[in-house]
Amino acid sequence: MPKSWSSSRIDLHLVLDAGRGRRSALESALRDAIREGRLTAGTRLPSTRGLAAELGLSRGTVTAAYDQLAEEGHLFTRPGSGTVVADVPPPADTAPSAAPAPSAPRHDLRPGLPDVGAFPARAWLAATRRVLTDSRAVALGAGDPQGRPELRAALAAHLGRTRGVITTPGRIVVTSGYYQGLSLLGEVLAHGGARTMAVEDPSHDVFRAVVRRAGLATPPLPVDSHGARVDALTRETDAVLLTPSHQYPTGVPLHPGRRQAVAAWARASGGLIVEDDYDGEYRYDRQPVGALQGIAPDRTVYCGTVSKTLGPALRLGWLVLPPSLVGPVVEARRQADLYSENLSQLVLADLITTHAYDRHVRATRLCYRRRRELLLRHAATVAGLTAQGVPAGLHTLLTVPAGWPPEEELLALCARRGIALRGLSELHVAAEGRPPGLLVGFAAPPEHAYRPALQALFETFRNVESGRLSKRVGHLRTRDDQ
Amino acid sequence: MPKSWSSSRIDLHLVLDAGRGRRSALESALRDAIREGRLTAGTRLPSTRGLAAELGLSRGTVTAAYDQLAEEGHLFTRPGSGTVVADVPPPADTAPSAAPAPSAPRHDLRPGLPDVGAFPARAWLAATRRVLTDSRAVALGAGDPQGRPELRAALAAHLGRTRGVITTPGRIVVTSGYYQGLSLLGEVLAHGGARTMAVEDPSHDVFRAVVRRAGLATPPLPVDSHGARVDALTRETDAVLLTPSHQYPTGVPLHPGRRQAVAAWARASGGLIVEDDYDGEYRYDRQPVGALQGIAPDRTVYCGTVSKTLGPALRLGWLVLPPSLVGPVVEARRQADLYSENLSQLVLADLITTHAYDRHVRATRLCYRRRRELLLRHAATVAGLTAQGVPAGLHTLLTVPAGWPPEEELLALCARRGIALRGLSELHVAAEGRPPGLLVGFAAPPEHAYRPALQALFETFRNVESGRLSKRVGHLRTRDDQ
Repeated sequence: MPKSWSSSRIDLHLVLDAGRGRRSALESALRDAIREGRLTAGTRLPSTRGLAAELGLSRGTVTAAYDQLAEEGHLFTRPGSGTVVADVPPPADTAPSAAPAPSAPRHDLRPGLPDVGAFPARAWLAATRRVLTDSRAVALGAGDPQGRPELRAALAAHLGRTRGVITTPGRIVVTSGYYQGLSLLGEVLAHGGARTMAVEDPSHDVFRAVVRRAGLATPPLPVDSHGARVDALTRETDAVLLTPSHQYPTGVPLHPGRRQAVAAWARASGGLIVEDDYDGEYRYDRQPVGALQGIAPDRTVYCGTVSKTLGPALRLGWLVLPPSLVGPVVEARRQADLYSENLSQLVLADLITTHAYDRHVRATRLCYRRRRELLLRHAATVAGLTAQGVPAGLHTLLTVPAGWPPEEELLALCARRGIALRGLSELHVAAEGRPPGLLVGFAAPPEHAYRPALQALFETFRNVESGRLSKRVGHLRTRDDQ
Repeated sequence: MPKSWSSSRIDLHLVLDAGRGRRSALESALRDAIREGRLTAGTRLPSTRGLAAELGLSRGTVTAAYDQLAEEGHLFTRPGSGTVVADVPPPADTAPSAAPAPSAPRHDLRPGLPDVGAFPARAWLAATRRVLTDSRAVALGAGDPQGRPELRAALAAHLGRTRGVITTPGRIVVTSGYYQGLSLLGEVLAHGGARTMAVEDPSHDVFRAVVRRAGLATPPLPVDSHGARVDALTRETDAVLLTPSHQYPTGVPLHPGRRQAVAAWARASGGLIVEDDYDGEYRYDRQPVGALQGIAPDRTVYCGTVSKTLGPALRLGWLVLPPSLVGPVVEARRQADLYSENLSQLVLADLITTHAYDRHVRATRLCYRRRRELLLRHAATVAGLTAQGVPAGLHTLLTVPAGWPPEEELLALCARRGIALRGLSELHVAAEGRPPGLLVGFAAPPEHAYRPALQALFETFRNVESGRLSKRVGHLRTRDDQ
C-alpha cells in the first residue's frame, strides 16, 4: 500500500509493506527513507496527528513509530520544533571484502587434505544425536580451556593404544587445531625464556612462520634419507620441531638411532621435542611406528589433530604435554579465546569410544594405500621421476628428472590444466641448490575423481618429457641440415 | 597366555594377550616391560632364535617384534652384542591437572547463561544432516579466516532485519565468540596506534581485561539511569565499548539523546564505537531498539554471538566492521588460529535462512519474559529489594536494602545453599562507595528447576531480613531489660 504525504515541509512517498503490522510498516518505511537519504538530517516530520490523518492510521500508531525511531537514534524531539530527522550517514560502499576464497581446483592433488567424501557422516550424526540427547547441558553450557574431560579421557586411551603415546587425560590440552596449539606452545616457551626452536629443512612454511611469530628463532636442521639431522642440535637449542613418523615433506621416518639421539639430547640439554604427528595414522607397508613421545614422554610435546582423518575444517587438535607445561598452555588458551567448541569435542569422544573413529581410519587407510600405489605405478612410467619416502601419509614427494623445466614452470603447467599441487622449494628454509620436487596429495579428490586427476597430471608430465625430446630431436635435425 | 623366559641374562614374565596376534602381543608385552621398568636400559635381550624357541613362536615373529620396537626407539641393536633395551624413562606422575571444572551449582542463577534445555536440538540435527549431505566438501574441506560466506550472507540479512544493522556480508567477520572478536579488534586497534578504549563502569570485568591485554587503557565511563555518560568521551579517546541495548550489568538502555551524542562524538573525533549487543534479541515490553550501529555504521563495530540464544559453548560470534577494519581483523584472525570450524557455521546459516533460529528466539523470549516477571513478583515481597533496568535480557540487577549485610556475605549465604549468582562489586572499575547489588540470571536453570531456584534465593533473602529484624528486636529487648 504505497502512501504519500505532503505536509508543511516535506513530500515523501512511503511504501508501507502490506505484509506487516501498520506500526512496523510505518517504522520500516521511515527508517529506510532516513537511511537512504530521502529524509535528510534536520528535516522536521509532520505532527503525529497530521501524519495519522494523512496515512489513515491511528495517532497512537504514528506516535509509537516515532518513539521507536527516536529510541534508535533515527529521529529526535526538539522542544518547540517537533520531531526532527537525525544525522544518519548512509553506509559506505560495500567493504573491499578480503580476497575471495579460491574456488576448488578441478584436480585437487594438494598434499595433506583428506577425502572428505569418506567422512563418516552417519556415525557423526548418530553421535551428535546421542550427545544432544544425553549430554546437552555439557555440550552447550560451559567450556573448559583445557578441553572437555570426556575427550581428553578418550584421547589418552586412544593415543596410547594406536600411537604408543604415554599420557593421562590431565596432560592433554584440546586446541582448535595444530596451528593454534603450536602458536600457544611457542608463546609459552618464549615467555619462559626460550629463544630457539629448530625446524626441519625442508618443512611446512606456515608452521615455521607460526613459531617465528611467537618470538622464537627457527634454525634449520638438514634432512637426509634418515630424517632430520638431530646431531646438529646443540645445548643452546631450546626446542626442536620434528615430524618423526613421516618427515614433512620428504616422507622419510626418523631413523631409530636418531630417535634415541634426540631423546638423549633432550634429556642431557633440557631441550624440548615438539612432535608433529600430522599423519601418523597412515602407514601402508607395516604397523605404524609408535610416537617418539613414547620414549621421552617428559621431554616431548606430542601434537595431533583430526585434520588428516576427518577434515581440517573441524578445527580439533590436541597437545600431550610434559606436566610442567600444562598449566601455562591452558592459561594461554584461556587468554586467547577461552576454549574450544564443546559439541564437536563430545562427538569426537563418542566416535573414539564407540570405535567408529578406528573403523573410519582403517577404511581410509585401505583406500589411500590403493591410491598411493596407483600414483607410484603412474610415476614408474616416466623415466627419472622418483617417488620419495616410505608408504605412508596422504602425499608423496616426486623428484623430477634432471633437465626438466624448473619447478615454477611445472607448477604453472599443472595449474593451467586445473591441477593443484605444491612445489618443494617453498618448503626449504634455504632453497638455493636444492633439487626441485613436487608434492602430490593422493587423498583429497573424491573417489571418482582420483583417476582423472592422475591422468591429467601424468599427461602433463609426458608432454613435458616429449616436448624436451622433440626439442632435442629438432635441435639435432637442425644441426644435421647445416 | 602368560609366558616367561629365562635366557642368559634376564628372567621375565611376559603376559601375551591372547586376544591379539602373536607378534602384536609380543610387542605389547615387551613395550610394557620396558616402560614399566621391568626391562631396564642396557639389558641385552635373548636372540630371536632363543626367544622364539622359549615362547613357542616363529623366529620371524620375534624378529618382527624386535624390529618394531627398535623403530620406536625402545630397543637398539649394538653390533656384536645383539639387541639391547634403550633408555626409556618412566613417565612422571600424572600432571597436576589444571583446576577441575567446577561442578554445576544446584541453583544456577548466574547471569548471561541461556536455558540450554530449550536448545532446538531437532532443528540443529536436521540442519547438520542437510549440511553433511548437500555441502560436505565445504563443511569439512577448507576454511575462510573471514568466516563462511554462507553464514555471512545469512547474518547480513538477519541482522539488518532483526537488529537494524546496516551491513553487507563483506563487512562481517565470524569469530569463535565475542571474547576472541574483542581480543582481535583490540590487537588491531593497538597495532594501528590506538591507546584507549573507554569502558562502562560498571561493566564485564573479563572483557575489560581482554581490552587491556591487547595493550589499550580502559578509562571508565560512569553509568547512570540513562546509560553510559558518553559526554565524558574526549577527542583523545580512541574507542568506546558500549552495551547500548541493555547496559551490562545495570540493565538500562542508552538514552536516545546519548545515542545521538556518541555517534556525533565518533564522527567528530574519528573515534570508534564498539557495540556489544550481547542480548539484544531479548526485550520483553516492546520491540527491541535497533542497534546503535544503524545510525553510525561507518564508525561502529557491532558484536554479536549465539551465546545467549543457543549456548556459549558453540563458540560462534561475529563482528560487523567498518570497511577499513575488515582486512586487518581477518589477517589477525588468520594469524591467531586460521579460521572457525565450518560445520557449525553452515548449520547456523541453515537455521537462520530456514527461520528456525527466529522461531527459537521467539520461543525463548516468551519463556524468559515469564521467568523475569516471576522473579520480579518475588522481589516485590522483600521490602527494599529493587529490580533495576528495563524488561530485557537474561538477568536482572537487584539492589538490596540499606543495612543488609555486605555483598560478599550475601553471596556466601547463597553459595551455602547451592545458589550461584554474581555480585555487582567486581564489575565496578572503582568499587568504593558503590551500593551493593546482586546479578540474578533467570534463564540458565532448566524449566522445572527455575521455581525451586527462586524459592531458595528468596528464602535466603527472607532469612537475612528476619535475622536482621530479630537481631534488632533482640537488641531492643536487651535494652528494655536493662
